[in-house]
Amino acid sequence: MDHSVPTPHPETLPSVPPKQGGGSRTPTTCQSVLESRPFEQIDPDTYFTMNPTPPHLSGNEALIEEFVQHHQFRTSCPVVLITSGGTIVPLENQTVRFIDNFSAGTRGAASAEYFIAQGYAVIFMHRERSLQPFARHFGPVTLTSQSTRGTLLDYLMVDPDTREVKVKPDYQADMYQAVSRYQKALQERRLLMVTFTTLSDYLFLLRSATRCLSTLGPRAMCYLAAAVSDFFIPAQKMVEHKIQSADGGLTLTMDQVPKFLRPLVYEWAPRSFIVSFKLETDPKLLIPKAKHALTRYGHQVVIGNLLTSRKRTVTFITPEHDFVIHLSEEECLQNPDLEIEAKIVAQLTELHRAFIDTTEK
Amino acid sequence: MDHSVPTPHPETLPSVPPKQGGGSRTPTTCQSVLESRPFEQIDPDTYFTMNPTPPHLSGNEALIEEFVQHHQFRTSCPVVLITSGGTIVPLENQTVRFIDNFSAGTRGAASAEYFIAQGYAVIFMHRERSLQPFARHFGPVTLTSQSTRGTLLDYLMVDPDTREVKVKPDYQADMYQAVSRYQKALQERRLLMVTFTTLSDYLFLLRSATRCLSTLGPRAMCYLAAAVSDFFIPAQKMVEHKIQSADGGLTLTMDQVPKFLRPLVYEWAPRSFIVSFKLETDPKLLIPKAKHALTRYGHQVVIGNLLTSRKRTVTFITPEHDFVIHLSEEECLQNPDLEIEAKIVAQLTELHRAFIDTTEK
Repeated sequence: MDHSVPTPHPETLPSVPPKQGGGSRTPTTCQSVLESRPFEQIDPDTYFTMNPTPPHLSGNEALIEEFVQHHQFRTSCPVVLITSGGTIVPLENQTVRFIDNFSAGTRGAASAEYFIAQGYAVIFMHRERSLQPFARHFGPVTLTSQSTRGTLLDYLMVDPDTREVKVKPDYQADMYQAVSRYQKALQERRLLMVTFTTLSDYLFLLRSATRCLSTLGPRAMCYLAAAVSDFFIPAQKMVEHKIQSADGGLTLTMDQVPKFLRPLVYEWAPRSFIVSFKLETDPKLLIPKAKHALTRYGHQVVIGNLLTSRKRTVTFITPEHDFVIHLSEEECLQNPDLEIEAKIVAQLTELHRAFIDTTEK
Repeated sequence: MDHSVPTPHPETLPSVPPKQGGGSRTPTTCQSVLESRPFEQIDPDTYFTMNPTPPHLSGNEALIEEFVQHHQFRTSCPVVLITSGGTIVPLENQTVRFIDNFSAGTRGAASAEYFIAQGYAVIFMHRERSLQPFARHFGPVTLTSQSTRGTLLDYLMVDPDTREVKVKPDYQADMYQAVSRYQKALQERRLLMVTFTTLSDYLFLLRSATRCLSTLGPRAMCYLAAAVSDFFIPAQKMVEHKIQSADGGLTLTMDQVPKFLRPLVYEWAPRSFIVSFKLETDPKLLIPKAKHALTRYGHQVVIGNLLTSRKRTVTFITPEHDFVIHLSEEECLQNPDLEIEAKIVAQLTELHRAFIDTTEK
């Protein structure tokens, strides 16, 4: 049975008004409809044949291969591939507009720091300009009097004596921590950063990275925290030029992105420890959908989270049992720097260790 | 005659296959259609009544008012409002997905530096996390051996003697320039930064900022470099929760964004010097569309640019004449740091000076 083909379902989405005929001239009856269609999705292999190979793929593949080989032959530390940030889906071949997924990359960037602290080597595969481990602590500064938001230059000052640029005294302690840890991770070759932007960049790179990682067997973990688009417009069906607005409203019809978790689990990295995420906004859907994903793909862990509470509560779904990880009000008061990713990573490290032990027996 | 209502036009977009019936089961016949509909757009006033006031609006209004009053009563320098970066259009009320416009904010951020150098006070109204003046020169570093992209921490090092964090020797000279200029601009109150994210944030803030600026009369310039969405889904027609992909493809139907240049020119800032941009990908459309915009709204300058050549060539359209500004191969070789924004701003400064002289006579 091929789980990757969902049962077509004619139901429309919640709160959607019924579709009306076009051409209405009264603004209040203009359509704004989100509706789903009972189309069959293409399979992942078809996706790769239909879309051109991204230009930077081979360079990134070489970096990942070198990194994985280093850890295969010279260290015994576990290796985790973290995907982080959202993918974009262009609406035009010469891209002026695109659909993006909400994700600053906080979950992935924070988790990378905790995995490094737990002794892992981390391949940090992230959306260009999304948050990065260690650097994430130094976003735009909130200025009070002159501006609402400052820049990275607000962390710096010119020393009037030496005319050297240095970090302002207020930020020295935090920057010292961040720079030292970051540079140590790089020196020990326990952090590799590679980037993607579009859905296509992401999918090609994910396939290459997980295939390469599979040579490490159960020592490798995939931690799929990126927010990946569910819908896309295949390149050959896209308009060439910027969509014109002079003619009125716009109707976009998009295809569903193939479910890549299936080939990842069964073909690309069949011996790795695989953790996927399920983000929803409707609490009623979260746990059923997370459980469905685990049953459908047969991997090790699904972490379910809601958009509004994801920084305080997540639910682990494993084949054996489900449990909730939560940051209590009290814990946050005691330690304002405590992040749920510290708990998530500690839990996964244990599960991964058990997985390695079981697999190697 | 109401110019804000375009003539409906039944023509579909270039390269678009004709719409087919839904429900096809063969992947190759899945629809991926971008089509426009002959809907009438709402007027700008209706937009403001239909959409809730953004939460940070009043705080930003206070900052802008204080800044404008300072320059109204205490200086005689010209003031420019620069809009920069793209706006997003959410697809869900609890936003997981959104449509974004391609724009890193390079044009706006570079222009801000040149306007400051020309003696202007700058209100830099930009998309959160888009490029910012002075800071824009220090994006992610390209690392050669270990990673494809580094972070801001790659500019920093720990001094082994003092354990202080400072800028690496290689970047000292450039950082010294940037930090000094940035901090001088802030100290002289010639740079105010305010941010937006969504289309709605942008439009409300634009109306407030230009109304406030209008008290300065012809001394004020609006330099509208932001890439603003042309299509949106009104809040009350949006679905509440994340769009589900289990049912197949997706059809999005969006309304056209009202043309805000008209009330800006005629009501919000009728005495200001107004510069708008027109970005296209199709060379055939660029000049006719840029000229059409100037005729339609009756402001001072439209700057036309093509996606692929915008860093080397732009066309100024004014009521008197059109001319091209270009960076030649030779100029770029002689000075690799030369940017077209230096020429654009020098040209606008002259036109603005003439505008002030004419208006004040």
